[in-house]
Amino acid sequence: MRELRIDLGGERSYPILIGRGLLADDGVLTRHVPDRDTLVVTNRTVGPLYLERVLAGLASRRTTTLTLPDGEQYKTLAGVESIFDALVTARVHRDGSVVALGGGVVGDMAGFAAACYQRGIGCIQLPTTLLAQVDSSIGGKTGVNHSGGKNLIGAFHQPLAVIADTATLETLPPRELRAGLAEVIKYGLLGDVEFLSWIEQQLEALLALDADALETAIHRSCTAKAQIVAADERERGRRGLLNLGHTFAHAIENATGYGTWLHGEAVGLGLLIAAEFSARIGWLSRPDVERVRTLLARAGLPVAAPRIGGRRALELMGMDKKVDRGRVRLVLLKRIGEAVLTGDYPDAALEATLAAAFGE
Amino acid sequence: MRELRIDLGGERSYPILIGRGLLADDGVLTRHVPDRDTLVVTNRTVGPLYLERVLAGLASRRTTTLTLPDGEQYKTLAGVESIFDALVTARVHRDGSVVALGGGVVGDMAGFAAACYQRGIGCIQLPTTLLAQVDSSIGGKTGVNHSGGKNLIGAFHQPLAVIADTATLETLPPRELRAGLAEVIKYGLLGDVEFLSWIEQQLEALLALDADALETAIHRSCTAKAQIVAADERERGRRGLLNLGHTFAHAIENATGYGTWLHGEAVGLGLLIAAEFSARIGWLSRPDVERVRTLLARAGLPVAAPRIGGRRALELMGMDKKVDRGRVRLVLLKRIGEAVLTGDYPDAALEATLAAAFGE
Repeated sequence: MRELRIDLGGERSYPILIGRGLLADDGVLTRHVPDRDTLVVTNRTVGPLYLERVLAGLASRRTTTLTLPDGEQYKTLAGVESIFDALVTARVHRDGSVVALGGGVVGDMAGFAAACYQRGIGCIQLPTTLLAQVDSSIGGKTGVNHSGGKNLIGAFHQPLAVIADTATLETLPPRELRAGLAEVIKYGLLGDVEFLSWIEQQLEALLALDADALETAIHRSCTAKAQIVAADERERGRRGLLNLGHTFAHAIENATGYGTWLHGEAVGLGLLIAAEFSARIGWLSRPDVERVRTLLARAGLPVAAPRIGGRRALELMGMDKKVDRGRVRLVLLKRIGEAVLTGDYPDAALEATLAAAFGE
Repeated sequence: MRELRIDLGGERSYPILIGRGLLADDGVLTRHVPDRDTLVVTNRTVGPLYLERVLAGLASRRTTTLTLPDGEQYKTLAGVESIFDALVTARVHRDGSVVALGGGVVGDMAGFAAACYQRGIGCIQLPTTLLAQVDSSIGGKTGVNHSGGKNLIGAFHQPLAVIADTATLETLPPRELRAGLAEVIKYGLLGDVEFLSWIEQQLEALLALDADALETAIHRSCTAKAQIVAADERERGRRGLLNLGHTFAHAIENATGYGTWLHGEAVGLGLLIAAEFSARIGWLSRPDVERVRTLLARAGLPVAAPRIGGRRALELMGMDKKVDRGRVRLVLLKRIGEAVLTGDYPDAALEATLAAAFGE
């Protein structure tokens, strides 16, 4: 098992535990979930696999369970309202907490419900997908989608702890594992060329669920994210870099209907479009773009965008949160391992990139 | 005009402006509302009176308006969802803000929407009721009611500024003015005996809307609240004292249906029940209880509770947020001007107090 901390100063700092079999270790849950009323939120896919084990670990607490439908299309305010109802029905008080057992959708919704219930109660994340383990469960971003945009409604609410059991990845559909790898690759592109090379070398081991390789990949991804979050919790500056690929991804997800593309798949393609755009304005070399494309393809991720049209993509990007004074700010690559957040680029280059990716 | 600051350290500190005619002063709005996309949220009662004036003051901005129905019964998640929809439709970005023009319901909902939209945009409070001017618009508590309890869903989100125009109280129904006085009286009971005596002396002037008396009452109330909020923004300790009377009040509002009793009316009666309970356990003298009752009655506030039954009241209090380890914590009066938050009281005394107030 590996452990690291998100250091936010004082009582808001919290641990991330990564290891195989952590959910089966009652001591881990006992130590990190407060001994008070607890609502476990899961979904119809993950619940049947791991809920019993988690409830056994929480046996000394008064525990209630809520099982949500599975899928990004259910990440709505109505879904969060059902969590509020469950908290009220179970009479969970201010000292109680929510345990999120599942992927990013469960984690984002349960986290947001915890942020708002009684103006904030504790939340413990038990991520069961690679994407949630390397990205969405840590850093405190919670929320839901709105027809106007992804994650448009939400809150910053740091969890009390994140417990990532890599054994849960063994029951994850291969398509979701690959989607999670897109976020792992993102950390390589963002700031750590050596990590990118490691991913290239270990890709087959990761796809084959090699326990050591997974633990290392998750630990390094979380370490990268932890540093950025600790420096800029509320995304006033550097944290924006974590959105590499995401503005393009959100346009894809919105245009195709949330859940058609997995978030990680859209992010993977977003990384490639960001690389293409960076090359078009003379920052990244063509071989570097091909390096990104090759790695995504090897990971089994899509490298061609849906034909939604460049104009529509641009319009949807305009609804994303990364907009400053009416201008879409994008994370672009100066070179592999060096990203910048900027609104200072030629519009024509963006339009040409979008037309090439999404069609006229 | 008087001005004070809520001091939360750094950029989150904000000014409270109190004076007659502030909304008609374009310079005030221009200075305190960011020059970006702005959504003005108001209600069907206040909008026709003051919206035009406010929009004139914001003329240089791209401004959209949302008018909500008026009443506590509309303070729901569905209401907040309509604000999200308006923000999305108006394409308000992260640098935009929400202006809340109205009483506590508008302020709480608009503030909560601002807290969650894009995980937090700016909010400027323009309170138009006495209750909102002395209490709900300041301190950053936002939220909505749930069938399980009042303000059960919400967030801490500090406004950018609070602008309290006392001229708006001239169009306030007298019943609402009296309800607001309950919160003013609360500050007297909480910590400032001299202020309580001042209220007793100035009550007729306040009821007659004397501009100086109102400005003084609002300024002193805000000063008292500002000190407590600055010391304990997230209500881990001392801020809980501001809930004097509120746990009883929430039970009344819930049992009778939100909106039947005005919040301030319920708080007034809650103050009296808190005083009665404090006397029953030997803290407050009977003459002090009568002093509270007399002042409330002079202010035209109800001094008799609805006959919902003590048992039902206790049950509803158990759903309130002031619960710690299954025990309702109450703000009680050691003496006039000295309140304590405690769960350490004889249950029988509470039950007897509730039975006396609400019936068997």
